[in-house]
Amino acid sequence: MRFKLPLLAIGLEVAMIVLFALFVHYETDHNVHQQINTTTPGAVDKFLVSYALFQDVHVMIFVGFGFLMTFLKKYGFSSVGINLFIAALGLQWGTLIRGILHHHNQEIHVEIENMINADFSTATVLISFGAVLGKISPIQMLIMTIIEITVFIGNEYLVGEIFKASDIGASMTIHAFGAYFGLAAAGILYRPGLRKEHDNEESVYHSDLFAMIGTLFLWIFWPSFNSAIADAGEKQYRAIINTYFSLAACVVTAYAFSSLVEHRGKLDMVHIQNATLAGGVAVGTCADMEIYPYISMIIGSIAAMVSVLGFKFLTPFFATKLRIHDTCGVHNLHGLPGVVGGLAGIGAVALGASNKSTPAMQAAALGSSIGTAVGGGLITGLILKLPIWGQPPDQNCYDDSVYWEVPRLREHDNHFYEHGGQNQLKLEV
Amino acid sequence: MRFKLPLLAIGLEVAMIVLFALFVHYETDHNVHQQINTTTPGAVDKFLVSYALFQDVHVMIFVGFGFLMTFLKKYGFSSVGINLFIAALGLQWGTLIRGILHHHNQEIHVEIENMINADFSTATVLISFGAVLGKISPIQMLIMTIIEITVFIGNEYLVGEIFKASDIGASMTIHAFGAYFGLAAAGILYRPGLRKEHDNEESVYHSDLFAMIGTLFLWIFWPSFNSAIADAGEKQYRAIINTYFSLAACVVTAYAFSSLVEHRGKLDMVHIQNATLAGGVAVGTCADMEIYPYISMIIGSIAAMVSVLGFKFLTPFFATKLRIHDTCGVHNLHGLPGVVGGLAGIGAVALGASNKSTPAMQAAALGSSIGTAVGGGLITGLILKLPIWGQPPDQNCYDDSVYWEVPRLREHDNHFYEHGGQNQLKLEV
Amino acid sequence: MRFKLPLLAIGLEVAMIVLFALFVHYETDHNVHQQINTTTPGAVDKFLVSYALFQDVHVMIFVGFGFLMTFLKKYGFSSVGINLFIAALGLQWGTLIRGILHHHNQEIHVEIENMINADFSTATVLISFGAVLGKISPIQMLIMTIIEITVFIGNEYLVGEIFKASDIGASMTIHAFGAYFGLAAAGILYRPGLRKEHDNEESVYHSDLFAMIGTLFLWIFWPSFNSAIADAGEKQYRAIINTYFSLAACVVTAYAFSSLVEHRGKLDMVHIQNATLAGGVAVGTCADMEIYPYISMIIGSIAAMVSVLGFKFLTPFFATKLRIHDTCGVHNLHGLPGVVGGLAGIGAVALGASNKSTPAMQAAALGSSIGTAVGGGLITGLILKLPIWGQPPDQNCYDDSVYWEVPRLREHDNHFYEHGGQNQLKLEV
Repeated sequence: MRFKLPLLAIGLEVAMIVLFALFVHYETDHNVHQQINTTTPGAVDKFLVSYALFQDVHVMIFVGFGFLMTFLKKYGFSSVGINLFIAALGLQWGTLIRGILHHHNQEIHVEIENMINADFSTATVLISFGAVLGKISPIQMLIMTIIEITVFIGNEYLVGEIFKASDIGASMTIHAFGAYFGLAAAGILYRPGLRKEHDNEESVYHSDLFAMIGTLFLWIFWPSFNSAIADAGEKQYRAIINTYFSLAACVVTAYAFSSLVEHRGKLDMVHIQNATLAGGVAVGTCADMEIYPYISMIIGSIAAMVSVLGFKFLTPFFATKLRIHDTCGVHNLHGLPGVVGGLAGIGAVALGASNKSTPAMQAAALGSSIGTAVGGGLITGLILKLPIWGQPPDQNCYDDSVYWEVPRLREHDNHFYEHGGQNQLKLEV
Repeated sequence: MRFKLPLLAIGLEVAMIVLFALFVHYETDHNVHQQINTTTPGAVDKFLVSYALFQDVHVMIFVGFGFLMTFLKKYGFSSVGINLFIAALGLQWGTLIRGILHHHNQEIHVEIENMINADFSTATVLISFGAVLGKISPIQMLIMTIIEITVFIGNEYLVGEIFKASDIGASMTIHAFGAYFGLAAAGILYRPGLRKEHDNEESVYHSDLFAMIGTLFLWIFWPSFNSAIADAGEKQYRAIINTYFSLAACVVTAYAFSSLVEHRGKLDMVHIQNATLAGGVAVGTCADMEIYPYISMIIGSIAAMVSVLGFKFLTPFFATKLRIHDTCGVHNLHGLPGVVGGLAGIGAVALGASNKSTPAMQAAALGSSIGTAVGGGLITGLILKLPIWGQPPDQNCYDDSVYWEVPRLREHDNHFYEHGGQNQLKLEV
Repeated sequence: MRFKLPLLAIGLEVAMIVLFALFVHYETDHNVHQQINTTTPGAVDKFLVSYALFQDVHVMIFVGFGFLMTFLKKYGFSSVGINLFIAALGLQWGTLIRGILHHHNQEIHVEIENMINADFSTATVLISFGAVLGKISPIQMLIMTIIEITVFIGNEYLVGEIFKASDIGASMTIHAFGAYFGLAAAGILYRPGLRKEHDNEESVYHSDLFAMIGTLFLWIFWPSFNSAIADAGEKQYRAIINTYFSLAACVVTAYAFSSLVEHRGKLDMVHIQNATLAGGVAVGTCADMEIYPYISMIIGSIAAMVSVLGFKFLTPFFATKLRIHDTCGVHNLHGLPGVVGGLAGIGAVALGASNKSTPAMQAAALGSSIGTAVGGGLITGLILKLPIWGQPPDQNCYDDSVYWEVPRLREHDNHFYEHGGQNQLKLEV
């Protein structure tokens, strides 16, 4: 184990550099260059306006996904740290694979839109990461990153270029795909030893607050996620508006259902951290269509319901009956709401909200996204199951200290010193 | 209690969806559409530029206000969670009420500016939330949200459309209004049982650091708050510059006064978390006027002074003598600095820094903001006092566990296991 | 001590206000005003587009640097709090000094670019702060702020206006400068009493997570830092792209080397928090040049390597042999990568990637940045060594409670009450 991770990472990075040297160039066309010498009053570089949207997405990927997963009491370093690692690796790989597939000549010209799409491609892996969180090693995550992004870009090409389906916020191609890919892998990697409640698989008070940092930045910038690569003008405007209202309705409904399903009517942090975001996922496919704000709100509300009920009833069922253990509940945040989004897209296209696609093509896109995800996830799971990747033993799951130097003290506790400290001294005496 | 919150929330969300279906439409005019087919080099969609400002405000509302209130050791879930809940509800309600009042025909056309104003309207409730934090139930907050936003939009209409007063950063209409509304409600809801220091009403080390996340994002993006709906060009530019320098001066003065009023010269986290922001509040009314940067800095410094002194002397006085308990000290962060802002606005207009308003109209705006706030707050307090809203008993105040599932452990403490753990074993043996 | 900090701070703020009254005016030229009445479709205020970049930098300065330093278990208030204090002071001072030096007439006209440069000038002090973190008083920091920013602006003028060297992301003028200034001061302020490991000089689990907030926001927005004041068009575009890929490669290499140098192959949080950012520093000088993305990735990878190796081998060597104790390891994050950046710049210019400068001038810029930094740092260290600035005694280093009111409890620990609590009771009985 000692040298596997560093050597694999260095090897991949060297390969990446070589491939970039061969294929990746600056953008040289008019989008960037046209206005350098313009004297038009009020003219600005278009790429700077896209760049602001990119930065919103960038915050979601690195702070949003990273902190969302810090809810486990002993797995915060891995959550936010491995998130950074695989996203940084994945965005390079995504740039390459997507560039090679989409640009038919030898050269990939990098624009802001490529950066947005590179970040998007890492999102699929980060979603799948949530399903296997705490149960696999950094090396396993690295392998999953390379495979999953490749499959993702293949399916995305199929959906966008062959089916010509609409999925502007990627409900199907990113969210449902990432969730079912992760669940399939988690199913293969299922370990009976983790069936009963694991000591480490719980939050502490402040780890739940760290997770809320992730939730809030995801929630806030989701309208940018759903509009970042939309067509300029009306469509981009609608993607923002629809997502904004879908998310607002989603929050209210998520709180209501969280309280409703808990037998004493209390709120559950797991629901608040996750189900409040389901509206952003579910409105994704039809975010740029003319669906009207109230329909967005209905979609957001349905997503919240489905998500909370999923956490309450489906996740335990999956873990015990289907032998699929989903650490973060990505099925409820990305899987089911992604399917809701795909279905809403079929409906919206059927009702004429978009003239770009047909219901059949939308259905094909949903089917293909789930199908390739499950297929890819199963194969990836089998590869990851090989006993050479340093998978943590059952008792060390959800514990940073397997892969990280962890501080001697978890929390410095004055209280402990003040009160407990003396007792200890007495005891030791 | 069991079903009151979920049913009320679901009922409100359904009502919201119906009202949106009836009234809310996409913007269809030229602002969004004109440049779709433009071939002007460097032309971009204006709404995307406004959207960047909106996102700054959005971060302030959800991360800024949310985390600012997490300073209490056992009330972090409610602070950041109820903040999200009422802001998500409030922005829908604010969109509707403001739309109905400002658009005289049947339709509300949603632009980015509506989203900014919707977020603004939630800020008033979040400020008032600070005054009653820990002492009321989520249902009570929900009721306050609906009432306060309605009153706020009424007063804002009065100030802007009838008095034609200037208040670009909403020192009066949001900050002073939110503070005095909350204080009036807190006065009515005063409970003698909470008079003496409550065990839960204190911070711990890391809860104070969580609160600094809120402080910093509010501080950073405040120039966007004060300029988001300013007139394009000079005025918007000045609103940014003035707020930037007001806040910088405010920080230096707040540190100085925090150290000055403490008998050993130490800094107090409460001042740093709050008084450093007072400059953003106080420069709000005249932020877009030609007041020169150094005047902004004087306003920021005065606000810092007033705020620190308020925390030191006024808050205890209010709690013991006036029977108004202000959990977060919103009077010192929003109330007094808001009044300073209103007075600065009167002065600036009198000195000719704006030709849009008159000193008398500015004074009327300040009076009306405080008056409607106190009136609205008193009535709201009386409604919230009805013993049917699940208000927490005295001993459970400032404690998440009344309304939230709280992790079994607060902080996982390795230290405890390492040292204390063995002792326990010995004891148990 | 009691009144020194407040009086000094108030005195400085008053001086600042007077100087602003004398020198600082609004920008009145066409950049701001030209398009107010424009009817060009799609025309927007240019300053708003720059303002979005400014806000990214602003987040880096206040949240990024502030939280990055919160890793110490008992020094979080000072890290994030003194960071805010000196940055707020420094940006006012930086605006003045830079304005006076660069504008040859009496007036300083403040544009968004001045705000970006003011924020930049504070970055140097915040970097130096990292070298002396925990060992000096707020008053000492305040003095260092005033001196360092003055020297920085002098050197920056030399580099940019006299040598006409390229350093768009300020690898030399900010990063190397800030690091060597801080190290020189730390060398003078060296205290043998701190030689052996200090009890407080360690992290706890959650303080390391707080630090990751800083790391991630720095990492995310670094492309904005390196491009914020670049020439519009191609150069600004390249500064974004190059920094994005340099940072991505840097992360992968930093993880690899962190695992490689640790004898059990584990990851070290110190490396992850810092070395992942070295690629942003090192690509700074040539970020806007035509170096191709793969060269950026090579620069980022080299920076990561140098940084991790620096943490592992150089920092202990500096502390024990050179008697320079570098609390945050700024030498490894800013010093060495800054030098790498300077050297890369010389190479890039030599290879013709820029026609703006010559290799000799680039070398002069690197030499001057390090030279003035060391000189300025030594003198500042001597001034700070005067025994009148309230420097904390050895045993109170790295402890907020010297300068801050600190909560009675560090972390409220339910667990302690549940399990330990009873034991205590038994013991006390």
